[in-house]
Amino acid sequence: MSGGPSRRVSIEKPVMTRNDEVAAANRSMFLDSGLFAINVIGSPGAGKTSLLEALANRFARDLAVIEGDVRTRRDADRVEKAGSPAWQIETGGACHLDAAMVRRAWMDFRETARGSRYLVIENVGNLICPSSYDLGEDVKAALVSLPEGDDKVLKYPALFSRIDVLLIGKMDLLNHLDADPDRLESECRSLRPGVTVFRISSKTGLGLPEFCDFIIRGREAKFRA
Amino acid sequence: MSGGPSRRVSIEKPVMTRNDEVAAANRSMFLDSGLFAINVIGSPGAGKTSLLEALANRFARDLAVIEGDVRTRRDADRVEKAGSPAWQIETGGACHLDAAMVRRAWMDFRETARGSRYLVIENVGNLICPSSYDLGEDVKAALVSLPEGDDKVLKYPALFSRIDVLLIGKMDLLNHLDADPDRLESECRSLRPGVTVFRISSKTGLGLPEFCDFIIRGREAKFRA
Repeated sequence: MSGGPSRRVSIEKPVMTRNDEVAAANRSMFLDSGLFAINVIGSPGAGKTSLLEALANRFARDLAVIEGDVRTRRDADRVEKAGSPAWQIETGGACHLDAAMVRRAWMDFRETARGSRYLVIENVGNLICPSSYDLGEDVKAALVSLPEGDDKVLKYPALFSRIDVLLIGKMDLLNHLDADPDRLESECRSLRPGVTVFRISSKTGLGLPEFCDFIIRGREAKFRA
Repeated sequence: MSGGPSRRVSIEKPVMTRNDEVAAANRSMFLDSGLFAINVIGSPGAGKTSLLEALANRFARDLAVIEGDVRTRRDADRVEKAGSPAWQIETGGACHLDAAMVRRAWMDFRETARGSRYLVIENVGNLICPSSYDLGEDVKAALVSLPEGDDKVLKYPALFSRIDVLLIGKMDLLNHLDADPDRLESECRSLRPGVTVFRISSKTGLGLPEFCDFIIRGREAKFRA
């Protein structure tokens, strides 16, 4: 089928160029603010906010969170309760965050989040549209939960060929599911050989210390360079 | 946030009008073909294809399936193995099906699917973009799996306020999760009071006879009228 995609080429090109410009400006802004920024992309219900609650428990005010959702500020409320400042972007109908939304959000949010060292941006729950929008992050991460099945990687190659980190979530359910995390990992490595993989459970804490270490070392490397 | 959505209004309006025209033509075409058509929308990994495998087991060649995915024809292969003819639309980058894609697919598929009484269209895994595209279906259904959590309805009101059927899936995992299906159901009824709800498990078969009866009775009502 070519009707949908080909019809869109003429309008997407200039939009993406503009987005890349704003993303580059965001990257400078995050550098100036001493922030290491992670863009987390996953399906609705993959467990993105539960992961952020766990990170908020660990990092408290060292972490700032920007939440993207079509509607409600439920996710920001959850993160704030867990101990980190959070800012909700309600996109209205838009199915992804773009660099300009994040820029405006950070302008409004930065006073509240002053002193934070890590910024996690939780993208709108969607494996397709967010994958092509650079937000100015240092690390693009995908969170796939085991109950979603082990066949997701090759179905969404635009995302999984661009990520720096693959998080395989809800590992606590492993024994109740047929899904195989090895398949997720190997199919992801076939698209993105250098990807860093963490198997995690926000419920049991599995893999979270390792992921937190990765974040801490990532920031150290960024600001030592 | 208004940047993304407002920028898109000028191009979306005419696209939707054209889509509605093609959807109306699809509706006539399905009527002429003796088909009762269901558009199933859900997140990646919600269990849409597993549900279709179960329906294929039940309905065999009475069922025809159109599969929408960004890439791969894995889903169509699974449904065919389960006993029903299936046609794969690979959208390339597009995050939803539109009426024209379905129309072209049915034109190519209808010889293979001759004699079928039910057509299920599995939309691209996404809770946002597919919700505003009428495909000419008789029933719009959303499948939310319990592991996705019980907070999804109010986050995606454009979808849940338009559906005829809510399927709450992977009920076999109920005892391993904190999610409450009553909350999903009551929040959905708050947006869409007349919605029909089925709690299902494609693994154990829970709720599937009732959903199949609903489909059979739906077709009978359509063609008796």
